[in-house]
Amino acid sequence: MELVLESPLDMHLHLRDAQMLENVAPWSARYFSGALIMPNLVPPITTLDSLLSYKERIQKAAIHNPFIPYMTLFFKDNYTKEFLAEVKDQITAIKLYPSGITTNSDGGVRTMDMQILAPVLEVMSELGIPLCVHGESDGFVMDREKEFGKTYEKLAKTFPDLTIIMEHITTAYSVELLEKYDNLFATITLHHLYITLDEVAGGVLRPHLFCKPIAKRPEDREALLQAATATNPKVMFGSDSAPHPTHAKECCGCAAGVFTSPLALPALAQLFEARGALDNLQTFVSDNARRIYGITPPQKIVRLVKEPMEVAKSYGDVVPMFAGENLEWRVDE
Amino acid sequence: MELVLESPLDMHLHLRDAQMLENVAPWSARYFSGALIMPNLVPPITTLDSLLSYKERIQKAAIHNPFIPYMTLFFKDNYTKEFLAEVKDQITAIKLYPSGITTNSDGGVRTMDMQILAPVLEVMSELGIPLCVHGESDGFVMDREKEFGKTYEKLAKTFPDLTIIMEHITTAYSVELLEKYDNLFATITLHHLYITLDEVAGGVLRPHLFCKPIAKRPEDREALLQAATATNPKVMFGSDSAPHPTHAKECCGCAAGVFTSPLALPALAQLFEARGALDNLQTFVSDNARRIYGITPPQKIVRLVKEPMEVAKSYGDVVPMFAGENLEWRVDE
Repeated sequence: MELVLESPLDMHLHLRDAQMLENVAPWSARYFSGALIMPNLVPPITTLDSLLSYKERIQKAAIHNPFIPYMTLFFKDNYTKEFLAEVKDQITAIKLYPSGITTNSDGGVRTMDMQILAPVLEVMSELGIPLCVHGESDGFVMDREKEFGKTYEKLAKTFPDLTIIMEHITTAYSVELLEKYDNLFATITLHHLYITLDEVAGGVLRPHLFCKPIAKRPEDREALLQAATATNPKVMFGSDSAPHPTHAKECCGCAAGVFTSPLALPALAQLFEARGALDNLQTFVSDNARRIYGITPPQKIVRLVKEPMEVAKSYGDVVPMFAGENLEWRVDE
Repeated sequence: MELVLESPLDMHLHLRDAQMLENVAPWSARYFSGALIMPNLVPPITTLDSLLSYKERIQKAAIHNPFIPYMTLFFKDNYTKEFLAEVKDQITAIKLYPSGITTNSDGGVRTMDMQILAPVLEVMSELGIPLCVHGESDGFVMDREKEFGKTYEKLAKTFPDLTIIMEHITTAYSVELLEKYDNLFATITLHHLYITLDEVAGGVLRPHLFCKPIAKRPEDREALLQAATATNPKVMFGSDSAPHPTHAKECCGCAAGVFTSPLALPALAQLFEARGALDNLQTFVSDNARRIYGITPPQKIVRLVKEPMEVAKSYGDVVPMFAGENLEWRVDE
């Protein structure tokens, strides 16, 4: 059995920088035609110079071609109209983080007050720049995404011409929210399609499955799976693959992030096949993203075959999801 | 400010064995007049011989006197009436574990079918031996305790003369359940009075706060605090202090258990004082247990003073709760 994917896209990717970038970028470039690159470096990407030089470093590190790093800026509420007009053609989206909500988000917005955000969001609407959002409140960990729902609704209503992407959604609630507003879209990660809080903390505690937003309940996972496998036009694949060196995952307080780039496509194929929806993977992993973002990725054919793939125990100093386990599919290279 | 506690009791304690026993037992013996000792060694305590020799090892390791190890047997559904009658005077309770539900519970019961459990439970009722239960289903991690509620109700109704202790309760649901049956009681740990899932996995992942049952929601913690501090006669302190060596907590899949014995009383005093309920700590930490179990612990006065206690970063190879932090109270020794 085989599956041919045309120009798969990863619409939420962390590549970090320097040595880590060189370690992980080739894996994304090998299997994806393009990826939306998150801007939460230290310091975050907020200038055209830093954006262009980061893009150059990514292209250099990616090795495998074609691969397009679709760049994003880190949202600041004081960006000027002139700046946004200047940078527009170099970016695919702007990513908004509430301050302190996840890894390297300290420079994020301190308030989701629409009046404060309006000037920048209005310009983005005008210029047609999509807004990606890490949507979590600072409430109880299992409620954070749902609590942010009201903010998504306000954004969607206040800026009806703004394309808004709810990043890495984890709840049935968010899947329902998508239906209420034409301008709301979402990415879904590989790990949130596979795991619930049970896998993170139901047996032993598993740091390498710890991520933000945290994996939720079985009925939430089911809603995500349903949306992804049934060609819901509002959702697209975004791995949120986020490498952390082992020492930052296994020490006393471990950082959030799951690394999946090298195995994302085989794992997705396995999941979609189990749901009898193998033919729908192309929609989830490429077609929806092209339409939502209005992008045309370079042609890249990735052929998957149903033969075992043994996932490496680590990639450099990064332990991946499914480390040392077998998946049912592999990329035919 | 000071607080005098008379014969504090820890009604749920793991002391393990061998070197670990020698490391941790003195801390319990130093601050408590007695403790209910969990029987989930490897292999579990299921014979009079193993019980008596474990008791002897505990007494030897405890050092500080007086300290009574109130012994428990590991529940087996094939205990005979003769055996239970013989062992009765040597034990304070029998602890039931569903198989595989927590650390060293593999030998536990494979079913909670009342018909299968009835012969032993009827004898326990007759002989007046209390039943302690680790009450969790094998469902989704946040639902396990609530799902076990139906089983507690069946036990309470079927065996009205049996004293049943719901161990280490973590939910508002369980607190409510206590009110419904005269023969239902509960222990509450220190850590479940302090933390929710937020502290375990809301920021970074904190293996040393990972326990079973997992810490739940803010409203659950509030219900536990309310019961403990308001002299609810159905609840008593049981630390569930459970030492694991650091290597078993910080590796890829970390074991469940929080070590609190050396700091439990100061941390409880801090909590009770913050609720304006300092005078109620005696009830929670001793009086209720005496009445529920019908025990008379040896006289032991523990004097707490409101002066800073710096919690050690580790006790031997065991990292405690609040490692390296300051508490507001200390034991005046």
